[in-house]
Amino acid sequence: MNNSNKVKPTILITNDDGYFAPGIRKLITIMRKIGRVIVVSSDQPMSGMGHAITIKTPLRLKTVCKEPEYEEYICNGTPVDCVKLGEQVVIKGKPDLLVSGINHGSNASINVIYSGTMAAVLEACIDGIPAIGFSLNDYSHDADFSHVDSYIESITHKVIKEGLPQGICLNVNLPAISESPIKGIKVCRQSHARWVEEFDSRHDPRGAEYHWLTGRFENDDTREDTDQWALENNFVSIVPVQYDLTAYKAIDLVKGWNL
Amino acid sequence: MNNSNKVKPTILITNDDGYFAPGIRKLITIMRKIGRVIVVSSDQPMSGMGHAITIKTPLRLKTVCKEPEYEEYICNGTPVDCVKLGEQVVIKGKPDLLVSGINHGSNASINVIYSGTMAAVLEACIDGIPAIGFSLNDYSHDADFSHVDSYIESITHKVIKEGLPQGICLNVNLPAISESPIKGIKVCRQSHARWVEEFDSRHDPRGAEYHWLTGRFENDDTREDTDQWALENNFVSIVPVQYDLTAYKAIDLVKGWNL
Repeated sequence: MNNSNKVKPTILITNDDGYFAPGIRKLITIMRKIGRVIVVSSDQPMSGMGHAITIKTPLRLKTVCKEPEYEEYICNGTPVDCVKLGEQVVIKGKPDLLVSGINHGSNASINVIYSGTMAAVLEACIDGIPAIGFSLNDYSHDADFSHVDSYIESITHKVIKEGLPQGICLNVNLPAISESPIKGIKVCRQSHARWVEEFDSRHDPRGAEYHWLTGRFENDDTREDTDQWALENNFVSIVPVQYDLTAYKAIDLVKGWNL
Repeated sequence: MNNSNKVKPTILITNDDGYFAPGIRKLITIMRKIGRVIVVSSDQPMSGMGHAITIKTPLRLKTVCKEPEYEEYICNGTPVDCVKLGEQVVIKGKPDLLVSGINHGSNASINVIYSGTMAAVLEACIDGIPAIGFSLNDYSHDADFSHVDSYIESITHKVIKEGLPQGICLNVNLPAISESPIKGIKVCRQSHARWVEEFDSRHDPRGAEYHWLTGRFENDDTREDTDQWALENNFVSIVPVQYDLTAYKAIDLVKGWNL
């Protein structure tokens, strides 16, 4: 090992769109300029997998390539499994940073709850690893990622330099490319919105009913301090996120019930 | 419809251990004393599914029974899918309450993040439905649920009477049966613990390596205000839980980076 290897941070990369997604390819290109990169991603799309882990079937890990500063693996697991395999089986220790994405589609607002991309970030955070999720507000496979490099680089360098407090990770959402340039970066809170489900119910050729999950995003939280507002107004949003789900403000209320 | 029907609350029940688990059967028995009950649960175990939703395959919903005050359905989806199907396809509206469980195994501490049981509760909470998750600190299929009725009943009646603030739901964990009676109920915060993974790596008959996800629970957070402490000391724990993951205390820190 030479000296330049020693100072380069080890960066673990995963996503939830699968190893073949242009978003993770872009993130790999950016991170290879910053550190030694290890990729562990899923062999199929894992969008909407939330914080799922695989406990009923065994996990298989395949080596795609292994170079001194770049290793890539794919597995049959979820994004959270990828983080666990990356730490325990590949690195056999902790990376200096985990980045997840770039997701094809926004993970702002309530999407953070359903997102495999952000679940991977939370998983690393639980393990004490500084972690950032990057998502682009464009769901298409052919999304244009050409305008995001400088934002991802500056946020990543800052996190490597400053670290993050234990229990806190970052949810970064980037506007889709448009004719107007991005206006800057806003540090925000998660907007309070929800998906209103509208199942698309059909009948198969044998007459049995089935339901496709679909829905529309409904955001009543229009204040200017939210991630959704930032994205819609062409800012990059950063929400510091935590895995402590305790609603501290409600503890006294429930105590007052004298159960 | 008679008058007694009108005043009875509609209670949607789901779980993550599957429709055949003794835990959900116990919860159904308790809730049928309190309201009109609609059960939508998975046709197979869904432990560790977190907030996963099913978007790549269609959902199938089968009617198990349909009586005036009791309906039961099973589906091929996750616990979150069960809540969505229950609201949109079965009830075509909102129940007065959602309860999930009784989970075979604790969902205290960091388990709340991986739990399908609690994901169902959070999903209902996002939709503005008062929601409670019940879990027993005993993973076995043959767990003894005979000591929990009065606690589940009193918490449920209280939530029906008082409601819950928007954005807040309850994570209730019950001690496993033991020679000592339960000491009471504690309102707590989520303990800061984690699972330390220890993959069980093996080779299949053809020589290919595979990995079983396993691990041990590591809790360094030993203070007496946590759910883990309450459970270990034979109290029922209640943690008020929220789906807003914003780490508000870190917003100024990240703003201070001047990105």
